[in-house]
Amino acid sequence: MLEQLKQQVFEANLALPKHNLVTFTWGNVSGIDREKNLVIIKPSGVEYDVMQADDMVVVDLFTGQVVEGSKKPSSDTATHLELYRQFPTLGGIVHTHSRHATIWAQAGEDLIAAGTTHADYFYGSIPCTRKMTAAEIQGEYELETGKVIVETFRSRNIDPKDVPAVLVHSHGPFAWGTDPDNAVHNAVVLEEIGYMNLFSRQLRPNLSSMQPELLDRHYLRKHGKNAYYGQ
Amino acid sequence: MLEQLKQQVFEANLALPKHNLVTFTWGNVSGIDREKNLVIIKPSGVEYDVMQADDMVVVDLFTGQVVEGSKKPSSDTATHLELYRQFPTLGGIVHTHSRHATIWAQAGEDLIAAGTTHADYFYGSIPCTRKMTAAEIQGEYELETGKVIVETFRSRNIDPKDVPAVLVHSHGPFAWGTDPDNAVHNAVVLEEIGYMNLFSRQLRPNLSSMQPELLDRHYLRKHGKNAYYGQ
Amino acid sequence: MLEQLKQQVFEANLALPKHNLVTFTWGNVSGIDREKNLVIIKPSGVEYDVMQADDMVVVDLFTGQVVEGSKKPSSDTATHLELYRQFPTLGGIVHTHSRHATIWAQAGEDLIAAGTTHADYFYGSIPCTRKMTAAEIQGEYELETGKVIVETFRSRNIDPKDVPAVLVHSHGPFAWGTDPDNAVHNAVVLEEIGYMNLFSRQLRPNLSSMQPELLDRHYLRKHGKNAYYGQ
Amino acid sequence: MLEQLKQQVFEANLALPKHNLVTFTWGNVSGIDREKNLVIIKPSGVEYDVMQADDMVVVDLFTGQVVEGSKKPSSDTATHLELYRQFPTLGGIVHTHSRHATIWAQAGEDLIAAGTTHADYFYGSIPCTRKMTAAEIQGEYELETGKVIVETFRSRNIDPKDVPAVLVHSHGPFAWGTDPDNAVHNAVVLEEIGYMNLFSRQLRPNLSSMQPELLDRHYLRKHGKNAYYGQ
Repeated sequence: MLEQLKQQVFEANLALPKHNLVTFTWGNVSGIDREKNLVIIKPSGVEYDVMQADDMVVVDLFTGQVVEGSKKPSSDTATHLELYRQFPTLGGIVHTHSRHATIWAQAGEDLIAAGTTHADYFYGSIPCTRKMTAAEIQGEYELETGKVIVETFRSRNIDPKDVPAVLVHSHGPFAWGTDPDNAVHNAVVLEEIGYMNLFSRQLRPNLSSMQPELLDRHYLRKHGKNAYYGQ
Repeated sequence: MLEQLKQQVFEANLALPKHNLVTFTWGNVSGIDREKNLVIIKPSGVEYDVMQADDMVVVDLFTGQVVEGSKKPSSDTATHLELYRQFPTLGGIVHTHSRHATIWAQAGEDLIAAGTTHADYFYGSIPCTRKMTAAEIQGEYELETGKVIVETFRSRNIDPKDVPAVLVHSHGPFAWGTDPDNAVHNAVVLEEIGYMNLFSRQLRPNLSSMQPELLDRHYLRKHGKNAYYGQ
Repeated sequence: MLEQLKQQVFEANLALPKHNLVTFTWGNVSGIDREKNLVIIKPSGVEYDVMQADDMVVVDLFTGQVVEGSKKPSSDTATHLELYRQFPTLGGIVHTHSRHATIWAQAGEDLIAAGTTHADYFYGSIPCTRKMTAAEIQGEYELETGKVIVETFRSRNIDPKDVPAVLVHSHGPFAWGTDPDNAVHNAVVLEEIGYMNLFSRQLRPNLSSMQPELLDRHYLRKHGKNAYYGQ
Repeated sequence: MLEQLKQQVFEANLALPKHNLVTFTWGNVSGIDREKNLVIIKPSGVEYDVMQADDMVVVDLFTGQVVEGSKKPSSDTATHLELYRQFPTLGGIVHTHSRHATIWAQAGEDLIAAGTTHADYFYGSIPCTRKMTAAEIQGEYELETGKVIVETFRSRNIDPKDVPAVLVHSHGPFAWGTDPDNAVHNAVVLEEIGYMNLFSRQLRPNLSSMQPELLDRHYLRKHGKNAYYGQ
């Protein structure tokens, strides 16, 4: 079932160590079949170098029940499912503790659009969520993590298609995209921006966002209706 | 004698350069057989690329005498032995000068629990010892290093099982675990946290520990009685 | 046509990932045949690991029209062409978003000549352009990027042969040289200096340029009439 | 002539890129035969991946004349020769622009002994020279570079055997040792310390040297009369 998507999710998970986004098994990628409302995600705690495509777990978008697969799905599955349910444009999601995105999450700060590398992929600041409440943490924690991400985008009026990543306060990043591979791509860019902004702000403590015209130009020449860009 | 443990200690030592935790021979891993009260440790000053399992040295937990092996045990053996004697839950110990843990040790600061990467492995701050006294340094220095670590945990009422690492002031880290491989695993996480906290604090100079509920949730979902976690 | 230069441009593009100057396809190198007024440049959006010498695109220096090649030239072609037209000593140009040069571009600061590594290649500060205006950004943006670079060098009276790189504000670096390979060489040095100056300034917030005699000595012993240097 | 030393110098030069101490050809190692007063040094500007043992150049310690070899000796030869002449305990010398040592040189600051990694190899601060004068720079610059290093050690009463490295102001490091391989070893440690101290000082801006008893213990257990140490 869903062999092609399973293979995509598997390969996207393998791309995480290749891009130095994960230590040990700290990361997971999922993909969704929107027609069948089924999500495929990495199994829980399996090492990348022994993982197989067949280890991927198929779960139901609404119930979270395992539909296929002999392994337990990633513990973060409930977060992925909530994001897929609330953000219908998402085709793939990735969670990591990549170093520089996590540094910003630990500091509880947004990643502002300080340069065109950012503008080529993210149409404005990448938001950091508020801290979660004790009740959220002690309740269905992984589901609540998804809910606080959704709240962040809705309350700040950000379209998740235009800003395909978030920093969860005191935790780390989630990124997404049109499919699992595109989600990993955005996670790589997020990490790159996390690194560069850290030190641009060291040089210029009051670093501010780039001029809006430049943000528009770079984002829209790649993602707008009349996109023409390729380096 | 103890061929299986010898192999484990050997492989755990080889994992140090693999995880970029050591330069030259600056590191050592040991393991203990609690029934026989024998400790196996890396030989002194042997290069990783020529080291063999048979080079591992077996020493007596109480006397420090070499029981088997033609090489000299690591000069840090007395520190390892003191930790094994005083902390009965330890199955493996690792010492390195890994860059970012050492940076914090040189600054003489604890590593606070600033995010969930920390909370997944360490149940609270990783303490930095006080400076050693002249008498301790000029006496049985390596043994005294172990004693100041033990004092740090006892005086601050930390269970070494819950916080499997320490920073020795002006020196570097020791980490431990249930066996040699788990000790190295914790040393890798320690280094990762050392890196991330350095820059989270650059972004937010008054960086404080995460909310206690979040620390509880992350530590206990992996290490508590009802652990269920795997990424 | 121009097979040799095509091969040089191809190899210079492959050198970008080898020197860790690019993520994904974020970079491009071009070269020029000054007799024929033809520029060869990387195709748009092609992955480095599948790129072939034959994928390089030949364009006219003055019209920008594709003269040979089945692929679209890099979107940054208009910037390259403007630099070749205005700076007749350039034989190759490279554009990247290399991390540390970009960090300075995002901060909007010149890279001052703080040490002999800089002086061996760049005869004075590497300038950062002013921000581009809304009209420039919304007009022929890539061409205007070239124009603002030219303006920066002319208004500050810098010979592009003596300072073979620039930082474009809120964007990233361009570097150039006598040929495509030399341009990449200078881009590597630029990145190295970007890294070192970042942290020299952390140590010494009021970091200033080196003494002019030392700048002269190092630059001229490699690039002056009586050059004698090689490490 | 001197085939064994030539091979040692050759291998020590190859160790520079292996340890990430050099970019392109920015570095050179030499060794000396104290009986014959002949120095063997890397040729000028030869790439590491095509270099051969036979490319090493033999020069006279006192005259600097080439005694054997078809290539030009490194442009830094006069600095090496002055150090060998004035510091008779040196058997090998290495010069690099390694990133973190150079960062401190550009900032014009000593590397203080902030931890035991330093104390295991260097018995006190690694000095940074004063800035060179215009006359020194415009005169026999490479020879004068050696002289200002010698002046630094003599005026501060440091034995070059106890502190086998120096930072040349606005330039970069020289390190030395009992032979070429040992000199490279010390250059690696210097770079490691340069990295760690940079960030220890970020954490603790008034970072001071470690207690002298600890410096003594670590240095002397490896280098003193009764040395017993090996990790």
